[in-house]
Amino acid sequence: MTQQIRDVVEQYVKLVGTGPTESIVELYAPDATVEDPAGTPVRQGHDAIREFYSVFDNLDRSTALHADTVRVAGNHAAFMFDVVTKVGDQRFTLTPIDTMEFDEQGKIIKMRAYWSQDDMRSEPI
Amino acid sequence: MTQQIRDVVEQYVKLVGTGPTESIVELYAPDATVEDPAGTPVRQGHDAIREFYSVFDNLDRSTALHADTVRVAGNHAAFMFDVVTKVGDQRFTLTPIDTMEFDEQGKIIKMRAYWSQDDMRSEPI
Repeated sequence: MTQQIRDVVEQYVKLVGTGPTESIVELYAPDATVEDPAGTPVRQGHDAIREFYSVFDNLDRSTALHADTVRVAGNHAAFMFDVVTKVGDQRFTLTPIDTMEFDEQGKIIKMRAYWSQDDMRSEPI
Repeated sequence: MTQQIRDVVEQYVKLVGTGPTESIVELYAPDATVEDPAGTPVRQGHDAIREFYSVFDNLDRSTALHADTVRVAGNHAAFMFDVVTKVGDQRFTLTPIDTMEFDEQGKIIKMRAYWSQDDMRSEPI
């Protein structure tokens, strides 16, 4: 199970950077919840999750997992990764910690992302 | 609130390294829960939390917060830190990711620690 969870984490981070949205949605169980960032309203189910990730579709973006931060404990995982987006002549880098809970099939049933605007760095390209 | 949460995270990591146990317990709300590591039975309330942390009392230990990993979002925080223990002529280093949820008074109401034996490093002193 640990390796399966680790694989899903790697796929997740990669897909957030490349899409397609539908492949991200498929990593989630049908009634899964997403709270991103933590403290904001929870989105539940594939439709709401699809809507959330589809905002990335038109962004010039890339991602990188901080592989040495991946922690798997039971059916839970936590990890840090970079999301880099380019808007105009600026590059924005956000580095959240995400936590995930998995079902017995290795589908994500709960995701929560820990970040705030304070964690956003910007620099000219 | 963000700065208050950040302060509690710093105090928490420091106190896990130095004690006393009672000062750690006081960071928690009376009916708080601790799940450490994730996937193991949840401990609830000050008595259970005191019992959990008191096992550290007799260990030769130290801690270090990875300050650049602290993420605060709403009433939630996530962070990575080292726990170093010395047993005989070996030094063991565990680097978990912890998540915490806080009440309006800045007390921890929920803590979950993400780590497994796979994340434990040992080296001769």
